[in-house]
Amino acid sequence: MTASRAQIEVALSRRSAVDPFIVMDVMEHAARIEAAGGQVIHLEVGQPAAPAPTVARQAAATALAAGQVGYTAALGIPALRARIARHYEEIHGISVDPERIVVTHGSSGGFVLAFLALFEPGDRVAIAAPGYPPYRHVLHALGCEPVLIETRAEDRHALTPERLLEAHRQAPLKGVLVASPANPTGTMMDRPALTALHACARDLGLAFISDEIYHGLDYAFPAVSAAEIGDDVTVINSFSKYFCMTGWRVGWMVVPPGVSRTMERLQQNLSISVPTLSQIAADAAFDGRAEMDLVKASYVENRRILTQGLPKVGLGRFLPADGAFYLYADVSDFTADSHDFARRMLDAVHVAATPGVDFDPFHGRTFLRISYAGATAQMAEAVERIGAFLKRG
Amino acid sequence: MTASRAQIEVALSRRSAVDPFIVMDVMEHAARIEAAGGQVIHLEVGQPAAPAPTVARQAAATALAAGQVGYTAALGIPALRARIARHYEEIHGISVDPERIVVTHGSSGGFVLAFLALFEPGDRVAIAAPGYPPYRHVLHALGCEPVLIETRAEDRHALTPERLLEAHRQAPLKGVLVASPANPTGTMMDRPALTALHACARDLGLAFISDEIYHGLDYAFPAVSAAEIGDDVTVINSFSKYFCMTGWRVGWMVVPPGVSRTMERLQQNLSISVPTLSQIAADAAFDGRAEMDLVKASYVENRRILTQGLPKVGLGRFLPADGAFYLYADVSDFTADSHDFARRMLDAVHVAATPGVDFDPFHGRTFLRISYAGATAQMAEAVERIGAFLKRG
Repeated sequence: MTASRAQIEVALSRRSAVDPFIVMDVMEHAARIEAAGGQVIHLEVGQPAAPAPTVARQAAATALAAGQVGYTAALGIPALRARIARHYEEIHGISVDPERIVVTHGSSGGFVLAFLALFEPGDRVAIAAPGYPPYRHVLHALGCEPVLIETRAEDRHALTPERLLEAHRQAPLKGVLVASPANPTGTMMDRPALTALHACARDLGLAFISDEIYHGLDYAFPAVSAAEIGDDVTVINSFSKYFCMTGWRVGWMVVPPGVSRTMERLQQNLSISVPTLSQIAADAAFDGRAEMDLVKASYVENRRILTQGLPKVGLGRFLPADGAFYLYADVSDFTADSHDFARRMLDAVHVAATPGVDFDPFHGRTFLRISYAGATAQMAEAVERIGAFLKRG
Repeated sequence: MTASRAQIEVALSRRSAVDPFIVMDVMEHAARIEAAGGQVIHLEVGQPAAPAPTVARQAAATALAAGQVGYTAALGIPALRARIARHYEEIHGISVDPERIVVTHGSSGGFVLAFLALFEPGDRVAIAAPGYPPYRHVLHALGCEPVLIETRAEDRHALTPERLLEAHRQAPLKGVLVASPANPTGTMMDRPALTALHACARDLGLAFISDEIYHGLDYAFPAVSAAEIGDDVTVINSFSKYFCMTGWRVGWMVVPPGVSRTMERLQQNLSISVPTLSQIAADAAFDGRAEMDLVKASYVENRRILTQGLPKVGLGRFLPADGAFYLYADVSDFTADSHDFARRMLDAVHVAATPGVDFDPFHGRTFLRISYAGATAQMAEAVERIGAFLKRG
């Protein structure tokens, strides 16, 4: 019997059955409109339009010209780990041992390492809704149980000790994951909020993971790192957002003292090492802060245009735009199906945005995520087009 | 209560308890000798000394100079997927739909995707001993049970239908993973061997995974791809070895028809996308084959020097050096502790090699892996030094 296409039936695991990102549908739809000559304004993408810092690109070019690009140590190039540790002293005023730094394949790689090291199959891990979809999908794929906790506006859409305790009483949790600034809400946790949640998690014996990928992009108040609050936390960060290095796939973790050896063995086996040129560029990127602060200034301007302009054209209800580059808008006055709403808006006025259903099974059908990571020149036009769409109904 | 260093005790998961690579100890030891002025010959490393093809490096440099390096599609840049599909036509004479190609973070990324998509926690997966350590470590970390099957010299140290059936009867298997050319043995499976094993796996309903990372580096006979034998296989390959692109972290899979969508969702969530510059370089690398064939010719020469020279100085028993760039030498005449033997050889004559214990819990204590990926100029010197060490005892 020869295998023919018709006969092939490969049994796939239940754990690999994760939801697709709805935003991918939006992006494909936008691409079709553009292929037909339409001018789409992209407010759906979560990546900066700007390139990596010039010094970072130069460092990569120099390394590339030198010849061989070999494996690095599993935990990362020592100079990069030391530079990241120094970043905590410069920005947060705390001393972090470079031994606690783990260089990762973007923040994505950090989540896989953290979940594998901290949780067994079946473990329950608390996350906020709305939240970044891969949190729950990766936990699921690794056999854990994501416990989605509905957040409230009065808590700036963050987890609170009360809600954490409540979930823990239903069935014991093993960990909790927070994000500040958060995706898709753009909201941040201030020091008292983060400190209280961390204390609660510690009392319950939970692993505390803090996603700080949007650090550096804080507008309402300076972002607080969980590393400032305790040594028992696992911080996950990346060069993708503030440093505009999405496609380089490089990020880092700060892990509790003594945990690096376990992370090293996992990384050796799961990925050998992180892309070498990306690590070299990342090390240099810290010297490109002045350039990145100009990019950040453009987000501030984009945010001003949208938060002032959108209410005037009828879109007035969104969460506090504390940080990151997202506005999370309540569109319940217009629709009970944000996926359909986003599709119609894209068709009608060629503005792409992400339906909240990607992020929140509870209320996502009445929310829309608007990214302002794009060009400032397009923001006023975006407001105008959205206004025209809302007027038309 | 404030967290202090002494109080921190982070509970790590059982599944993260994977063995370290012994070769890392060897490399650290070698580094100490070099720091003290010693001249070490590195026969322990599994990576080419040559850089990526010139055209690949040029393509990366051009992309880098152009500015933004953004995310790509989760399955990879379409042009690269098409180019990889064409490679199967050129090398193996088979037509592969580009839809079946998944670009990965090296072969490492491919294993994680394959294991997650094909196996549930608790599933038993057959692998050969000796074999590449991450097979069993990653399976373990993802909750699966690696079933190590002891191989025999008369089978070229490959799995056979008989041994597979035997293991399946003990307790049902869910999959089998083969490698040809294999690490650490350097042996290959010929077409009849691969075909018979595949037929057996299909009859038992097992997922069939073929690690083809050393394809292109075949000396005894042309390597056969499992993709030639059936559409129901999962092939894992990489640009690291033949194309000398280790630190770029880019590889690929060929998956059964219809499976790409699952791989896409997993990759979206686990890693978003593969490093962009690496993908661009990989696409161009196929045009650098003439350059890579010169590198391969140097391995042929290295292999000749070692296989002819080592027996003359007393190291005469090794497995058939069919492919890859490894000699797997039986050192049972000299030691029952290959780790200690490797340490003493490194100390005495500054030649680094990898103890077999990394690869084989059954017989690894009497084997040594010798890599000939290094410079040809050093191979004769290596033979001489090893001879001096063996004479000394």
